[in-house]
Amino acid sequence: MIDRAVSGRSQPDTTLLGPGDDAAVVRVADGRVVVSSDMLVQGRHFRLDWSTPEQVGRKAVAQNGADIVSMGAWPTAFLVSFGCPPDTPVAVADALTDGIWSEASRLGAGVVGGDTVQSDQIVLSIMVLGDLGGRDAVLRSTARVGDQVAVAGRLGWSAAGLAVLVAGVDGHAEVVAAHQVPDPPYSCGPSAAESGATAMTDVSDGLLADLGHICAASGVQIDLDLAALEPDPPLHAAAADLGTDPIVWVLTGGEDHALAATFPPDVDLPDGWRRIGVVAGGTGVHVGGREWTGPVGWESFGPADSR
Amino acid sequence: MIDRAVSGRSQPDTTLLGPGDDAAVVRVADGRVVVSSDMLVQGRHFRLDWSTPEQVGRKAVAQNGADIVSMGAWPTAFLVSFGCPPDTPVAVADALTDGIWSEASRLGAGVVGGDTVQSDQIVLSIMVLGDLGGRDAVLRSTARVGDQVAVAGRLGWSAAGLAVLVAGVDGHAEVVAAHQVPDPPYSCGPSAAESGATAMTDVSDGLLADLGHICAASGVQIDLDLAALEPDPPLHAAAADLGTDPIVWVLTGGEDHALAATFPPDVDLPDGWRRIGVVAGGTGVHVGGREWTGPVGWESFGPADSR
Repeated sequence: MIDRAVSGRSQPDTTLLGPGDDAAVVRVADGRVVVSSDMLVQGRHFRLDWSTPEQVGRKAVAQNGADIVSMGAWPTAFLVSFGCPPDTPVAVADALTDGIWSEASRLGAGVVGGDTVQSDQIVLSIMVLGDLGGRDAVLRSTARVGDQVAVAGRLGWSAAGLAVLVAGVDGHAEVVAAHQVPDPPYSCGPSAAESGATAMTDVSDGLLADLGHICAASGVQIDLDLAALEPDPPLHAAAADLGTDPIVWVLTGGEDHALAATFPPDVDLPDGWRRIGVVAGGTGVHVGGREWTGPVGWESFGPADSR
Repeated sequence: MIDRAVSGRSQPDTTLLGPGDDAAVVRVADGRVVVSSDMLVQGRHFRLDWSTPEQVGRKAVAQNGADIVSMGAWPTAFLVSFGCPPDTPVAVADALTDGIWSEASRLGAGVVGGDTVQSDQIVLSIMVLGDLGGRDAVLRSTARVGDQVAVAGRLGWSAAGLAVLVAGVDGHAEVVAAHQVPDPPYSCGPSAAESGATAMTDVSDGLLADLGHICAASGVQIDLDLAALEPDPPLHAAAADLGTDPIVWVLTGGEDHALAATFPPDVDLPDGWRRIGVVAGGTGVHVGGREWTGPVGWESFGPADSR
């Protein structure tokens, strides 16, 4: 399985030693390496009747890549640990691998190692390394009162797509595709760091939840402008079909891996970023002047919904 | 759970940013980072009736650390992805975490990140970073005809301990303990690299299997001297009780995470290393002049034996 996963793939220059030895060696010119990991479990984080294995592989890499760019770094290498039942079709493992390589290649990153084990359900654990390129890491804990709050990338699309799949409604291909494979605005992470972003995170748990992390870590309040969070047209279309309000997807949907950041008040936001609010003294995230009382976002140990 | 796992722990100087943000930042003074990952699955790689959760955590870190030292590097940071059923007792998660920190601290390494997810069985995925300290990585593919073959650390102890547990025999505490928590000869990896080791690996699948990897990667044959592989006294004692031959544990038992390496013929082996054979022209591992025809070692997709 490992031979099939690594043969015929090309590695970037940063991969000094690829798969096949006890460990891999990756160049980190900066002298500091940014690292993160995420585990995806079948039936909880993905369903193979809603996503192809190739899409699951791409999504797993994308969500890890988003963690790196949200620090202002760039992903250079992925490691993949893959657990599956022994009767898992080879085609499923191959397609997962293809998806992993496809998204990693899009980033110019290598897949440098990992392992395969037997497990009761498919488990995909991905680790990513990133290079800061001389920039300072952009943390969650350094937002300042008076900063602009901005986002890059799509909000609520993945949640809308999941709702469409759960309801079994036809159509709405755009949001379903967004749920199957996120499209994080990768380049907006390093550009935000270069523009002086004071704090940054990716939107993996939902905008309110992830901005809430910035508030808690920075000891600030964030006031969001509801007019700046108008749901995109495909969300309105899906919500109309499902009889719901699309603003909930915008505010609480994770998995699009948009980026959310704070910038000094005088900074011109870089390409791809749009202003959605301001940092104030206080605590928590406020929407349209009031504290949000609806659901906040994804909880790791809540009921499974196979996002 | 994450708060409980990280609060009150101290990080080494190499941890520039620890857990709590989208990613961690680790110093890599060398400019090259060594990386590896391993996944452990409950019921397959460990059983909580045979090992305490604290032992499972220590073992998971030890086996990853061994992959780093077998490159001639030193482990600096671990990431832990932990999947478990929602009814997993908090005490189990805490003890696992304590074991992870305990072994990482022994190495002077940090635990810098990871995540927790819900899964049907306990899954522990560990990733490790290491620093080469200016040394060249020691690969599997660079053994040369005429080299000495040497090992550092225990052979067959873990396999003997597993056999004792499987048989349900009392006693033999030393080998059972070795199965529960390996004791890799960490410092022997960098010292081998400094002494000019030409190839190195850790013994995770069994001596024959892992030396077989060196043979295949280097295009050489290895001739082992059976007299140099005399089983240690606790193995003889366990084998006598179980009515088996302990040499099989020495040759095919993994999980002790001994180190096996090749050295130029004129090198004085560093402390902790002992000569067990020689590299010759040809293919495969030969024992006492003959090709071994018994079992070779651990297969990831063989029947579960909960090692």
